[in-house]
Amino acid sequence: METYRYKASVQYDGTDFFGFQIQPEDRTVQAVLEEAIAKVGQADSPRLVGAGRTDSGVHARGQVIHFDLAKRMPERSLLMGLNACLPADVAVTNVESVAGDFHARYDAKDKTYLYQIYNGPVRDPFLARYAYHHRYQLDAEKLEAGLKLFQGQHDFQAFASSKAEVKSFVRTIYQTDLTYDPGLNLYGLRFRGDGFLYNQIRIMVGTLLQVADGRRPVTDIEKILASKDRNLAGPTAAPQGLIMESVGY
Amino acid sequence: METYRYKASVQYDGTDFFGFQIQPEDRTVQAVLEEAIAKVGQADSPRLVGAGRTDSGVHARGQVIHFDLAKRMPERSLLMGLNACLPADVAVTNVESVAGDFHARYDAKDKTYLYQIYNGPVRDPFLARYAYHHRYQLDAEKLEAGLKLFQGQHDFQAFASSKAEVKSFVRTIYQTDLTYDPGLNLYGLRFRGDGFLYNQIRIMVGTLLQVADGRRPVTDIEKILASKDRNLAGPTAAPQGLIMESVGY
Repeated sequence: METYRYKASVQYDGTDFFGFQIQPEDRTVQAVLEEAIAKVGQADSPRLVGAGRTDSGVHARGQVIHFDLAKRMPERSLLMGLNACLPADVAVTNVESVAGDFHARYDAKDKTYLYQIYNGPVRDPFLARYAYHHRYQLDAEKLEAGLKLFQGQHDFQAFASSKAEVKSFVRTIYQTDLTYDPGLNLYGLRFRGDGFLYNQIRIMVGTLLQVADGRRPVTDIEKILASKDRNLAGPTAAPQGLIMESVGY
Repeated sequence: METYRYKASVQYDGTDFFGFQIQPEDRTVQAVLEEAIAKVGQADSPRLVGAGRTDSGVHARGQVIHFDLAKRMPERSLLMGLNACLPADVAVTNVESVAGDFHARYDAKDKTYLYQIYNGPVRDPFLARYAYHHRYQLDAEKLEAGLKLFQGQHDFQAFASSKAEVKSFVRTIYQTDLTYDPGLNLYGLRFRGDGFLYNQIRIMVGTLLQVADGRRPVTDIEKILASKDRNLAGPTAAPQGLIMESVGY
């Protein structure tokens, strides 16, 4: 039977989801998307593939998915129909018809993630869902210096969850970027790489926070990379600061 | 018995509150604040007074309250203690000791409110809690022209909820201001006045939206003001777009 493949860009506020990947009992992004696709595409139990599986509490501005339908539908109808069926915390921002061999995960060339850190003395109720609140004063120069040490190709085993099941821990970070909004007291740490290990960004950020508030020297980062030992790196930073920004193909 | 009066600035995300004012059964901002004051100030059923009573779903960046304690406490201890007792969607940003006759409501000289309108074609999950999503294209010049007609002293009876119980509907709007963020497709309508009637800003905004998307001429605003008839004004705009920004004393 001939099917038609679609690629879609998806945004979600991850606060009220148990992550992206479908699970039998819990509310997941994949489940609400598949439900919407089933209705709009009149498909029985459609399956979608996402570029990355974000964890519970992690957000996305530019997750990418693909799915197949038995009938051809205009891209605009699909876009409007899906949004009409989705809850307020998920949106599809783009739909396009693609070749039948396009794969949202395998064809991804790079991914960009942003981690937001609120550094004010008192909690900000409007940032509580979208940034990690670090109370100790951060040194922007140390943050920047630490970030740069992650650039390039490394074995990131020390910065991966022990639950990561992969053949190789070698990944390449093409670019890092630091922004600061003084009005909001908000730091943004951006990472673009060929792929990231399970919890890698959150462990890198947890370690960078220890560097930037003076608890450990920036040179520790090179030592931890060389050690390949997860126990030497910092803690896994909270999920709400992490936003999957975009996927390049 | 001598008591000590404190003035505090408060922020809250109104989404999960049934408004500011205390109610027997529901979660309100006043209730969680009074609970925190009771704990930190070791006071039995303390009562606070807020500068304004925001409705269910309405937010605040600069609500002001006053309350009395039987003992004198350092401002900084009170600030830190209250924040330690408050939930993630409320924060106290400032506490100061004031004269015993200071009154958060009666002494307020002006109040500033911001109403946020998201004008993109597809829902934005990150703005869903903090902006009203208007799908029809808005004309910024018409918005601006309509806003200006509200400036000055007017009888705002046509723009007040029929539930408003007041002696006079005359209020003065000192300043209005329109901002637009093209990246987010987000309009901000700011109003500073000596006080606002029940639902006044939301009804003014509901009417301005009809003007700015072409459903009625801007000259209607003067006619509606003159009519004093609530039925001639537009609908009450959704609460989640409204933010109490500041109170002047």
